[in-house]
Amino acid sequence: SMNPDLASERQTASFSVEKLTAWLDGGAEHTQIRRAVVEAIESDPVFSRENQYFQSQNERYEAAVRKGVHLQKKMHEMGWTENGPESKYIYRALSGDVAFSLHRVFKRSIWVLGSDKQIAKWIPLASQYQVIGTYAQTELGHGTYLQGLETTAVFDVTTQEFILHTPTISAMKWWPGDMGRSATHTVVFAQLYIHGKCYGVHPFIVQIRSLQDHSLCPGITAGDIGPKMSFEHADNGYLMLQKVRVPRENMLNKFCEVQPDGTYVTRGSEKINYFPMTTVRISIILDEVIIPLMKACTIAIRYSVVRRQSKLKPGEQEAKILDYQTQQEKLLPQLAAAYAFLLINNYLQELLDRAYKEIQRKNFDTLPELHACSSGFKAMVTQYSTSAVEICLRACGGHGYSLLSGLPSLYTRILASCIYEGENTILFLQTARFLMKCFMAASAGQPIPPSVTYLAAVKPGKCPAKSKLDFLSPDIYTEAYQHAAVRLISSTAAKLQDLIQSGVKKYDAWNQCTVQLVQAAKAHCHYISVENFAETVEKLETKPGIQKIMKHLCDLFALHGIFSNAGLFLHDGYLSGAQMDMVTASYLDLLAVIRRDAVPLVDAFDFTDKSLNSALGSYDGHVYQRLYEWAQKSPTNKQISPAYEKYLKPLLHNSLSKL
Amino acid sequence: SMNPDLASERQTASFSVEKLTAWLDGGAEHTQIRRAVVEAIESDPVFSRENQYFQSQNERYEAAVRKGVHLQKKMHEMGWTENGPESKYIYRALSGDVAFSLHRVFKRSIWVLGSDKQIAKWIPLASQYQVIGTYAQTELGHGTYLQGLETTAVFDVTTQEFILHTPTISAMKWWPGDMGRSATHTVVFAQLYIHGKCYGVHPFIVQIRSLQDHSLCPGITAGDIGPKMSFEHADNGYLMLQKVRVPRENMLNKFCEVQPDGTYVTRGSEKINYFPMTTVRISIILDEVIIPLMKACTIAIRYSVVRRQSKLKPGEQEAKILDYQTQQEKLLPQLAAAYAFLLINNYLQELLDRAYKEIQRKNFDTLPELHACSSGFKAMVTQYSTSAVEICLRACGGHGYSLLSGLPSLYTRILASCIYEGENTILFLQTARFLMKCFMAASAGQPIPPSVTYLAAVKPGKCPAKSKLDFLSPDIYTEAYQHAAVRLISSTAAKLQDLIQSGVKKYDAWNQCTVQLVQAAKAHCHYISVENFAETVEKLETKPGIQKIMKHLCDLFALHGIFSNAGLFLHDGYLSGAQMDMVTASYLDLLAVIRRDAVPLVDAFDFTDKSLNSALGSYDGHVYQRLYEWAQKSPTNKQISPAYEKYLKPLLHNSLSKL
Repeated sequence: SMNPDLASERQTASFSVEKLTAWLDGGAEHTQIRRAVVEAIESDPVFSRENQYFQSQNERYEAAVRKGVHLQKKMHEMGWTENGPESKYIYRALSGDVAFSLHRVFKRSIWVLGSDKQIAKWIPLASQYQVIGTYAQTELGHGTYLQGLETTAVFDVTTQEFILHTPTISAMKWWPGDMGRSATHTVVFAQLYIHGKCYGVHPFIVQIRSLQDHSLCPGITAGDIGPKMSFEHADNGYLMLQKVRVPRENMLNKFCEVQPDGTYVTRGSEKINYFPMTTVRISIILDEVIIPLMKACTIAIRYSVVRRQSKLKPGEQEAKILDYQTQQEKLLPQLAAAYAFLLINNYLQELLDRAYKEIQRKNFDTLPELHACSSGFKAMVTQYSTSAVEICLRACGGHGYSLLSGLPSLYTRILASCIYEGENTILFLQTARFLMKCFMAASAGQPIPPSVTYLAAVKPGKCPAKSKLDFLSPDIYTEAYQHAAVRLISSTAAKLQDLIQSGVKKYDAWNQCTVQLVQAAKAHCHYISVENFAETVEKLETKPGIQKIMKHLCDLFALHGIFSNAGLFLHDGYLSGAQMDMVTASYLDLLAVIRRDAVPLVDAFDFTDKSLNSALGSYDGHVYQRLYEWAQKSPTNKQISPAYEKYLKPLLHNSLSKL
Repeated sequence: SMNPDLASERQTASFSVEKLTAWLDGGAEHTQIRRAVVEAIESDPVFSRENQYFQSQNERYEAAVRKGVHLQKKMHEMGWTENGPESKYIYRALSGDVAFSLHRVFKRSIWVLGSDKQIAKWIPLASQYQVIGTYAQTELGHGTYLQGLETTAVFDVTTQEFILHTPTISAMKWWPGDMGRSATHTVVFAQLYIHGKCYGVHPFIVQIRSLQDHSLCPGITAGDIGPKMSFEHADNGYLMLQKVRVPRENMLNKFCEVQPDGTYVTRGSEKINYFPMTTVRISIILDEVIIPLMKACTIAIRYSVVRRQSKLKPGEQEAKILDYQTQQEKLLPQLAAAYAFLLINNYLQELLDRAYKEIQRKNFDTLPELHACSSGFKAMVTQYSTSAVEICLRACGGHGYSLLSGLPSLYTRILASCIYEGENTILFLQTARFLMKCFMAASAGQPIPPSVTYLAAVKPGKCPAKSKLDFLSPDIYTEAYQHAAVRLISSTAAKLQDLIQSGVKKYDAWNQCTVQLVQAAKAHCHYISVENFAETVEKLETKPGIQKIMKHLCDLFALHGIFSNAGLFLHDGYLSGAQMDMVTASYLDLLAVIRRDAVPLVDAFDFTDKSLNSALGSYDGHVYQRLYEWAQKSPTNKQISPAYEKYLKPLLHNSLSKL
């Protein structure tokens, strides 16, 4: 049976949900593979997340290890391989609660940074889980700024060993996943010293736990860093090294080597060092950010047509809360953003594929653009999505605040994505640095990469829109975004130049512009997202049913951005106040249009109830029944609390005489 | 010993921290009382929060009950009374992790809604904890809209009893604190039926647990609603009533009564019903919202002068992260907001005191203004502060994400304040309704309440500022805020009128304006906050040291708001783009000015290390040492996980042969 309020929403879809799903998956054949993977994972009781909201950190760690170990068996059983078509759906289907994700980073870093000999030795061991690895870069006192790392690796020419050491407490490795309790080995980043001279940060393989009994190796102090806002299942750890010796061949040496006599040799391009970081940054966007956002939208939108509150019209039944304009204004822009980001993810994947092909041909020219794009979009998508998930949570009122809604755990986890793999402000500033360079190059008539060619063709002027309907034209709003981005980039470049010309030191001038540089980078990314969405919609000619609804979502994404950042468009009069009123009117009209298809639009994401793990978001809409049933399973209802005997009984002891 | 980076920040304060603390407390004598209460609570081991971050929901509930019971003893011992000068510091000192907060609401509702006889019977029992009460209003399917409640109370004239009943699952009471496991009694709100006729929602006292053995009473189903995003210590509960009979005298009957023959009588003004809700709404703002924000600022700002990251100038040491403009731009506006909200809280308290005096004289005329103000400011302050605490958390990077920073628990708790005691969107709309009425009245030349008289004197025009320094004049920015508020209120009123005149039904027209009505309400509250801050600063003439720094904070609060909401000021050309550039320049200059006093400004909040309970925020700045020491206490480090024997050992079993 289905809640009738939710059922009625599905009868009026303006498009085929199944076709939209297939399009989102990149073809019906992919949908089939995805569903098969999800089915295989969800039907296996080891992978159940049923009790997730009731488990302690210890219980979740244990379950994650169990799942991690079981996954190897499962993959073998199912014939799934690490590079097979199923692979991209496996971790999604597990919803991330599985151990050994840092083990994968350990392997990848050996692939990229290790010599053929090192790869031949370590990769088979790691692939068969005969060692469990992690990746120890961040220190207690040092994050993004790698040059600041304090851990040392001193080459001892007499024994042909490196002596790894943690000189201060702030040099302790801190945060690596799988390190607190699981890993036997780790890649450690440390400052290389040879004959007293520092050669900068290099990676070393270090064993930290015995393969016999898992006890810590001599000189190793390691443990768990304790509770975090989420990732309870992960044993993020710390590591202190007390003059730990590793053989010379444990330095990963594809790009540089210490020879037996202590001679330091580098080889190959160091630019390529950024490539793995960039791929990781792109790879998290879908599974860790966009999918959680899609889940949050699914939960909040389904709940908003089941929940009724107050009367919209006198004499009628209480209204579905999604019929309130304010509720539409909370949720529907987040839904449009989820679609926009799915398309941005495709854009980044294409950019990455192109760059990878060039790299194969030893052409590294595309790397700066790829780096700037992946940094900016990682920052934009994580920041926007985090705030969007919070909006979804709050839009569900009190019930959204219950862990059983699934929304708090989506929020606390997605929040971390703003911090890991590059803190967002720093990433935006990297994009901004690229934009400044390109703007200068464009001004000097030099060639610039494809994604920023718009900087070369600056058109001043005013927006030509004359009615609210004009703002449903992609040309109109795309140009407005482009104009705003150019204005912010050029005015910040001018401020930077002015400061330097007035005698301010370059680094001071940069610091004094960083608030505006971040704004400029955001505006650039926002523009590219809107343009990419509009272009994708245009190419959908052969799928008119989908094209129409995607066009609405694209319009909403664009107009929501203008409405919410009005100052950027009004500042130099590109949009007038009267035009902004037209934007607002069109924006509010769109909310009512998309509201009709809101449920089919989240149904198309095709999440199973198990993957949502939400009492509010299930397909059948039996919200209240499920909240009540799930609450029964809470450990808080499993026994009479000792608090009664210990504290309440003595307090209440003489009540009976009085009542 | 103190971290030298933090110590150096304290040597250059431009004002006396002790004097600022005294001013914030409303006089040095209050500071003394506050410190004595904090000292008494924190020196008592029962009230320790040392293990808070490691406890399960069950453990936290038990600790909260223990604290709640012990608090009675403590108060008696210390000679503290419920209305004494210490009372307002007790719950603050406990940091909220204590049971029986709904018991206080139970008592207050009897005070306000009960007859003298009912007060005489129940208040002494409740005060001596011979009953433990809670307050059951919200239902699983019904929140803010009280008329929609489904629980019924049918008067049985033959037995002189009310029969309380939960007719559907959505009618189950859901969320009341202290109900899941502690309470023996509750006030239940139910639809009153007499001879088949419904008289609307009324309050009834119902016993739910035996005073003898705490078992559930006949007809009662009750339990805990399970895990939430925070408030782990609170046993938020559910309650189902199966034809539970209570005597006629259990209906709280100060304002209405059912006589033995079933005659329904009302008496007194029903307006006063809103008064308790309003006082609760105001009372949470300080302890549940502003103080957590002040704590978050303290933690993040202290950490930001201890943490060093990257080099600002080549060749120098890594820089304190607070020396980066982007970090200043994250944190300092939140600090300014904390001060602004402290002053808004004073403003609301004064408004409340004045209203209360009028009510004593049976004059209820001030209630609409008080209701509108308290609704709007509750919504504004909770929303702004929630986002501010999130900013503080993220500004601390990875370590902010550790529970040991104290920031995640501040965030997950403050987030709830956006939902409870009135969902924020609904509250903003109540303020907006008041503003619309007042605007119409003003347009018609009728008198309007003091806080909105500015609506009567609409001055169109342009901002007269000519340089960035002009924007440090409170007159300039206060007028800009006023202008923006008037514009939004008047344009939304016009849209509403137009829609209605064009034939749209009134309720539809209202719904179509709600997004803009919320904007208008926010602009009004923002204006009043800025004006109140500026007026307070002006009155500080006799305290020039404090006045100067408060003036900077007021300027920052105001200019940050203009910078972040530029569209509101540019829309009709009140500010030009060139003037907005001046605002930006002044705003960025202020960041550098206030940065110098940032640490003394949070020191003045005078939080003890125990009350912050943060590894990052302690007074001595020994951040890394404390993170490491606290992590050792985590249950994740207390034993070898069974996961090793069960899952890892078999996985690693044949590694030794290969290595």
